[in-house]
Amino acid sequence: MPKIESVDLFYVSMPVVEDISDGSQDALLFRVAAGGTVGWGEAEASPLPSIASWVAPMSHGFCHPIMTSVLGESINSPEDIARIAARVKRRSLDILQTDHTLSGLDEALWDLLGRMRGEPVWKMLGYRKSWPKTPYASQLFGETAQETYQKAKQVADAGYRATKFGWSNFGLGTPKQDADHLMAAREGIGKDGILLVDAGCVFDADVERAAKRLPALKAARATWYEEPLDRDALGEYKALSKRTPKVALAGGEGCYTFQMAKQMMDFAGVGFIQIDAGRIGGITPAKQAADYAKAKGVTFVNHTFTSHLQLSASLQPYAGLREHEICEYPVELKAVAMAITRNTIARDKNGQVSAPDAPGLGMEIDVDALRPYLVDVSIKVGGKALYETPKLRA
Amino acid sequence: MPKIESVDLFYVSMPVVEDISDGSQDALLFRVAAGGTVGWGEAEASPLPSIASWVAPMSHGFCHPIMTSVLGESINSPEDIARIAARVKRRSLDILQTDHTLSGLDEALWDLLGRMRGEPVWKMLGYRKSWPKTPYASQLFGETAQETYQKAKQVADAGYRATKFGWSNFGLGTPKQDADHLMAAREGIGKDGILLVDAGCVFDADVERAAKRLPALKAARATWYEEPLDRDALGEYKALSKRTPKVALAGGEGCYTFQMAKQMMDFAGVGFIQIDAGRIGGITPAKQAADYAKAKGVTFVNHTFTSHLQLSASLQPYAGLREHEICEYPVELKAVAMAITRNTIARDKNGQVSAPDAPGLGMEIDVDALRPYLVDVSIKVGGKALYETPKLRA
Repeated sequence: MPKIESVDLFYVSMPVVEDISDGSQDALLFRVAAGGTVGWGEAEASPLPSIASWVAPMSHGFCHPIMTSVLGESINSPEDIARIAARVKRRSLDILQTDHTLSGLDEALWDLLGRMRGEPVWKMLGYRKSWPKTPYASQLFGETAQETYQKAKQVADAGYRATKFGWSNFGLGTPKQDADHLMAAREGIGKDGILLVDAGCVFDADVERAAKRLPALKAARATWYEEPLDRDALGEYKALSKRTPKVALAGGEGCYTFQMAKQMMDFAGVGFIQIDAGRIGGITPAKQAADYAKAKGVTFVNHTFTSHLQLSASLQPYAGLREHEICEYPVELKAVAMAITRNTIARDKNGQVSAPDAPGLGMEIDVDALRPYLVDVSIKVGGKALYETPKLRA
Repeated sequence: MPKIESVDLFYVSMPVVEDISDGSQDALLFRVAAGGTVGWGEAEASPLPSIASWVAPMSHGFCHPIMTSVLGESINSPEDIARIAARVKRRSLDILQTDHTLSGLDEALWDLLGRMRGEPVWKMLGYRKSWPKTPYASQLFGETAQETYQKAKQVADAGYRATKFGWSNFGLGTPKQDADHLMAAREGIGKDGILLVDAGCVFDADVERAAKRLPALKAARATWYEEPLDRDALGEYKALSKRTPKVALAGGEGCYTFQMAKQMMDFAGVGFIQIDAGRIGGITPAKQAADYAKAKGVTFVNHTFTSHLQLSASLQPYAGLREHEICEYPVELKAVAMAITRNTIARDKNGQVSAPDAPGLGMEIDVDALRPYLVDVSIKVGGKALYETPKLRA
């Protein structure tokens, strides 16, 4: 049975990282090799702390460096991936960074296994078909309502049926100002467009302030109201979900375990659960969340903030759920994120996107394009080199 | 107004760390200086990932290196500590390791502020008195029931009114085997002893297997049944809490935000909430958890796994809650943990312990004793040294 021979972590970055909400400015990639096959994954994590968790000297029996739970393990089936993840989670239980790091590893293991078997990941997850999804273009609210209108119109003109507006000044001014932006967005996308709103946790845990925006959200026919509150304020989300007029809540991008996603669905009253495979611990717990969402009548949506490699990984867990149709689609990626893959997941003639019908994650890593973005990292503890950026190879 | 001039992180460790559940084998210490005063804190975290989170290059607007939210900030009141913590949490939201790192910083800021004012931390938290707590000695179950009996007897003979047994083979064999250990423990500590049981998450999310131990726990008069299930399996905890015979559940040591502790109390049906100030984000959120526990009729208990500096920090949040009387007390600390402080929090003539009536955390750091344990760390990114172990000074 093939054994995991090597795992290499690569930190790639734009030369200059800007202080903006654009998660595509750097990336942490995992290259796993076993039995002559190579798989790739990406952690949606701060690269340096995740590299540190990979090599950190043991603190005690539940605080092992993650790599020691992985190297040399046999890998031949999805059960092996689950076994390795359970081993990592138990032996590195008290390293908080663990699940973010595990996410990139789990994705790479699924990619590897799919390539060994010549099967797409979604097929190994038990789906018979990869259904097309309706991508939404994500953007910031304009500075003025007029600017929001123009942004909305542009995206609709570019052929997107769904648009998400978020952040900027939403929630920072009066409910009336927010209402103006919401109506401008609706006018810009037209009456049939799908309008999504992301409040970026702006109301902390204040249900009253968050609720003041419900009438305008309803009037603008927003499909969801995303993260109005702090990510872990479950009881407050639940209270908000019961307020009228009713607008479906969306959240979950911060979940880094299946149980956290389950709690959002059990206790927070969300109508949409947004899961990033690069954060929740990989494709394995993301699929658990999709199964649970389906059973519970909650709609699953990917959260994707970075490359097309990550987009493929985040599409796999719900590729076969036909009715769970909305998809977050990265539109304005930085050059480093585009350099990761040779191919992309493009919109089809209907403007929709699907998880690739190709082995593993179906993405081809472009090591030559990536090389200029590779960050040189060196970590020494007690004079011993624990991590040196490895050579980038296919 | 004094400004934070420097924050130094020190990683100290035993020369050899063993693969056992003993959290006192290494430590991450924070030294904060402002306006001529110095405060110390400790993060109950894997040191290397936390150091990395402190200096990690920015990934995007919600992924800043933690230090950039701290250095140069003014510090004159508890509100300043809350403001700095909020700034860290927002600007480093997407670094998973953040709250563990913040814990050591928050403790150091409280210590600093107390020393600036000449007041104990518990007084600044609004308590008028630091009530004595009943410490429990924590140990592993014996290999045989006879060995468990002897361990229990030894601790009772050493004057401890309360004893906790955990881990080892508990839950791994039959309910009958566990029952034998529980009855042996009860016999060893005598009829008036307080018996606490820690299952170490051994039953994953399996309520049925966890429930099979309830009759023996009841028969042995266990005060609590700690972490029978996975830390985030809130719904399963709740289901277990309703099973008969009723035994109070304890949990919470894994919480790294106030909201997580609140969720344990709201949704998991725990009777005891165990909070480690070195993990939950420091004394500030630990005090919030203590307030919430008091209001909710849940008993607050510290979780302390390491030094007397950490013990002081974890006692502060509930020092003034007279009825919340049980206290986890580290009994067999490794030399590095003992080297951290010149003084200790010793048992009084009644065998009880209290948060010190002295400025700040009331502990004196022994830099000379610590020096031999200092770990030399170097982190370079893109050829630039982001972290080099600083000189250890008082």
